[in-house]
This record gives sequence, structure tokens and C-alpha cells, in this order.
Amino acid sequence: MPLDELAVIARLRRLAGEGAFDFRDDAARLTPPPGCDLVVTADMLASGVHFLPDDPPDSVARKALRVNLSDLAAKGARPLGYMLSLGLAAWTDEAWLDGFVAGLEADQMEFAIALLGGDTIAVAAGPVISVTAFGTVPEGRMVHRFGGSPGDLLYVSGTIGASTVGLALLQGRSGPWDTLPASVREALIGRYRIPEPRLALAEAVADLASAAMDVSDGLVGDCDKIAAASGCTARIEADSVPLPAGLAEGADASLVARLITGGDDYEILAAVPPAAEAAFAAAADAAGVLVTRIGALRAGAGASEVVLGGRALDLGRRSYAHGDGAGA
Amino acid sequence: MPLDELAVIARLRRLAGEGAFDFRDDAARLTPPPGCDLVVTADMLASGVHFLPDDPPDSVARKALRVNLSDLAAKGARPLGYMLSLGLAAWTDEAWLDGFVAGLEADQMEFAIALLGGDTIAVAAGPVISVTAFGTVPEGRMVHRFGGSPGDLLYVSGTIGASTVGLALLQGRSGPWDTLPASVREALIGRYRIPEPRLALAEAVADLASAAMDVSDGLVGDCDKIAAASGCTARIEADSVPLPAGLAEGADASLVARLITGGDDYEILAAVPPAAEAAFAAAADAAGVLVTRIGALRAGAGASEVVLGGRALDLGRRSYAHGDGAGA
Repeated sequence: MPLDELAVIARLRRLAGEGAFDFRDDAARLTPPPGCDLVVTADMLASGVHFLPDDPPDSVARKALRVNLSDLAAKGARPLGYMLSLGLAAWTDEAWLDGFVAGLEADQMEFAIALLGGDTIAVAAGPVISVTAFGTVPEGRMVHRFGGSPGDLLYVSGTIGASTVGLALLQGRSGPWDTLPASVREALIGRYRIPEPRLALAEAVADLASAAMDVSDGLVGDCDKIAAASGCTARIEADSVPLPAGLAEGADASLVARLITGGDDYEILAAVPPAAEAAFAAAADAAGVLVTRIGALRAGAGASEVVLGGRALDLGRRSYAHGDGAGA
Repeated sequence: MPLDELAVIARLRRLAGEGAFDFRDDAARLTPPPGCDLVVTADMLASGVHFLPDDPPDSVARKALRVNLSDLAAKGARPLGYMLSLGLAAWTDEAWLDGFVAGLEADQMEFAIALLGGDTIAVAAGPVISVTAFGTVPEGRMVHRFGGSPGDLLYVSGTIGASTVGLALLQGRSGPWDTLPASVREALIGRYRIPEPRLALAEAVADLASAAMDVSDGLVGDCDKIAAASGCTARIEADSVPLPAGLAEGADASLVARLITGGDDYEILAAVPPAAEAAFAAAADAAGVLVTRIGALRAGAGASEVVLGGRALDLGRRSYAHGDGAGA
């Protein structure tokens, strides 16, 4: 054991929320508000797969929490609490752990969520971080991946592709991003390390979307998934997909294809019935979250049609699998 | 990725419970019964630390689930569902996964619990298995580690030390167990690989114990913990500690010390007020679970007093840390 389990717990104690009993018990108590369902999601992250071994520990912690918060947002849920299981390698020291805890503490404040409990173990290759997060929705109001209908419009939050470019920059892979100003490149790297969960959009999703999911494995593949789960197919207007500042202007077909099939965007993809479109746009605006219509669900089955400049866009792949590019 | 994530999900699908939506969504819905609190616990297991690399996959799965069920039992909770995050090494094949799923399926039937969701990733060294389990207790009735008082009697379920001997046998370490019949040795190995969560005792614990926890890191150290959490100390009558059949007879002080400080027992340690003692024994008897009085909580602080044959027992250590002996 690199760090004594009690030393780890002592450091985590300031993250303890209600029902965690200051980690003096073996389990936590969770009491959902009356009239609510719990939404439960889990994501596990491993060094070299979901983050780079030399990523700062506070950003590793924040990513581990935020990818779960992103799932809650896409289900229309409000964060309630989370469990954390931590597999630490022998090299893990107090400085790494202090950074990790500081990252969680900052995000707990920002997103009004607290740690309920978990486990700490030694692993041969780590860190391996497992988060299970809980959110609440009014009873029966969880938004699913499978609720869409042909004709529903597909909306995406934020921009798509920043994280793909951020990872390429961290890995020293050259591309059109090489000529971007340093500050823009830093921001793109930041989006890879610390995604932005769109919790501000959760209420609009809950009230107005017929289906939603977060975009984590590439926009095109995730459009395929939401369409298939909803028993239809999709058409994506690639010209409409919002790309990061500095890359949007003059992006050629190959760059567009790369950005809309890359991973780790953690934006919300929502299907919105036409009658709800104006209300959804207004609610997103009121929440301060950019949303963009990028296509629609259609009757049929199979892979989404992806069109750029009126022609089918040639895609090398449709999805991103973690480990493809992160040096695993 | 050793196995495609979709292939893993397809195999896990038959484990899906209500609220899991057949794993067609990104999150699960959990609706606790009215008037109940949820009890949430998490344990992470790693190959070479909590199980041996060549342990059968079905026993690895069952251990991962059962160590969590053991925590629920000790809190007086009834199982409701669980989340599973699975870090798989490159060598993991379909045969291993099939065995793993079969183990979970058998235990889901036995303990009336179902899988709600989770995640599957690739890890450099695996498997790493993270389970977060949910149970229910009537509102406000969760049993804590910290509820005991001086004078409360300490009870333990089952026997103590079987798992310690099972691990020693698997590792080829010699000891007094070498002369046991093969069938007894097999049973001890079985207790290391597949612990027995004492869910049958949960109701008696909920109704009658002032404090409880499961014994996973050595009985003596865990008595220290329940006493310290309850603001007192403890006295353990080591002569009373129930040892496994074949080892109980003629065990010398050194063997007793080893068994009551070894890990992985997953028995329940409960503090029972004297006035509730008869009812607790009767409830345990009705539930078909052996319970034995092994000592008591006392006013004071610090390490528990451990007595064998009227004299203080010499203990080399008080607790077991995973990885000490499992070849990590």
C-alpha cells in the first residue's frame, strides 16, 4: 500500500457530505428527497486510457467526477452525491493525493455535490478511479437515450472537438492546430483534461427533450446510438456542428470528420420535438448554455447520414474508443 | 480493449434489474421503497491483492459482490441493487467473462439483488473490479459502527480464520492445517474465495444491535475500530472466538493469534446491549446463523484487551491489510 488507507481517508474527510458520517462508518446513508427518483451512473477511469500519466492530479480528480456529472446532466438530473473507489499505485504520494483532493473539493463546491463514501486499495498499475454518482429527478421524469421519434431535432451543447485537439496537442501530434495562439492551445488542452458538465442545461433537457445522452465517444457514433435506441436513424448536417474557436474557420472535410468522431466532448446531445424547439432554445439561452441544431432523427434504421456541403462526408471511423489515442 | 465494450455489455445484459433499462441507457433509475433509507457501500478488488490471479472467474465475481453484501448485512440492510465497474486487462477473454457473469448470476439469484449499470474499461493490470451496492433499511434504522456503549456484549457470526487458512493453503504456506483432510482444506480455500455474507442476520442486527460492522481486516483490529468509533475500548475472550472445524481443537496461542488477526472473514461483529442479548441469540438462531459472544465493550480508550486462558495474548499484529499476503 503506497499510502496507508487511514491516511487517505483522513485527507478525504473534508469532502464528506451528509450521510457520509465523516467516513466513520462502513457505508453511507442516502435519503432521496420525497417524490424523486434517483439517477445512478458510474464511470471508471484509468491512467493512460482516460487521462495521461503526467496529467495534474487535480485535473484527474475533476475529470473523474465531471464525466459522471455529465451523464447526470444528460438524464435531466440534479447532483446529489457520489461514491469514490480509488486504486493507487505504489508511486502515489501525499502530494499527488493532496492535488487530487483539492480538485474534488473545488468541483464539489462548483456543482453542489458531496462525497458519501468509497474504498481505497493498492493496484499494480494506477491510478484507477471509479466514481458512482447519484442525481435526482422528479418521479418518472428521467430522460432516456431511447425516447426520440422521427422528426425530432438533434441539438448539441457547446462545441465539438476541443478535447480531440487537446489530446493531440498533449501527444505532440501535428495538425492545423499547430498555428493556433498558445492561449487557444492551452484552452483546448484544458477541455481534454477538465470537461464541462452541462448541468445548467439539465432542467431544459428534463422538461423538453424526448431523448438525451452525453457525447463521450464521438458525436457521429453517439448520434447513431441515440437514433438506434429510439428505433430510427439520424441525419447530421456537419456544416452546422459547432467547432471550437480557431478551428471552425476554414476547417476542411478531413478535420471536420476527425472532430465529429473524436472522444471526450462531454456535451449533451438532445432530441427535441419540433413543437418544443423554441422553448428549448429559450431555456438553453436562459441557462447560459450554447445549443446548436445539428440534424434530426428520421424514420429508418442504421448509421446516421452525415452531410457536409451537400455531400456525404467521408468518415474514417464513427466512434472513439478510450485507449485509441491516449497511449494505453 | 481486450473485449469490445458492446460484447461485454451483451454478456452482462441478463443480469439487468428493474431500472437498468437492459443497459440501453447511460444511467440507471433507482427508486427506494417509501419509508426507507438507502444504505450505500463500495468495495474495489484487484487481482493479486484481494484475489489470486488464477482464482476462477466465477469466484472472483462472487467475492466482489459478496464483500459488498457483507457490508449491507452489517448495517442491517436488505439488498436492492448494485453498480459494477470493470477494468479488464488485455488477456481477458470470453471464457473468463462468461465465468465472471455466471458467478454474478448465481449470487444475484441467491441474494435477491440485480445489476443496475456500470462501466467497462481497459486497464494495464487487471482485473480491477469496483462494486457499489445499495440496500434498504426502514427510515432512520441504519446500524452504525459508532453506536455501542460500555457494557454491550460483542457477538460474532460464523467462525473466524477460515479465510486466512484458505489463503495460506493456496499460497503453499505450511502450518497446522497441512494435516487436515483434503475436503476440509478445500472448504477453507472456498471460504477465502467465496465469503458468506450474513444477510440472514441483517434483521436481527437492525432490531437489536447497538453497533455493527463486518469483519474484513482481522477480528482484533475490527474490535478496536468498533470500540473506538463508539468511544470506548473492548475486551476479547480469545478462548470464546469460534474457530473453523479442524483448527479449533488444540489450537495453540500462536495459531489463535494468527486467526483472529487475519483478513477476509466477512462475518458480522455486533455490539448487543445486555437487555437485548437473549432476543439477539434467539433471532440469530431463528435465522439459522451461528453467533458467539466473544467479549464486551468497556469504558476507556485504546486497543482492545485480548485474553487467552486468563492471560494477555501476544499478538504480532492487530489487523490485516490486503496485499500483505496475497502476492500483490
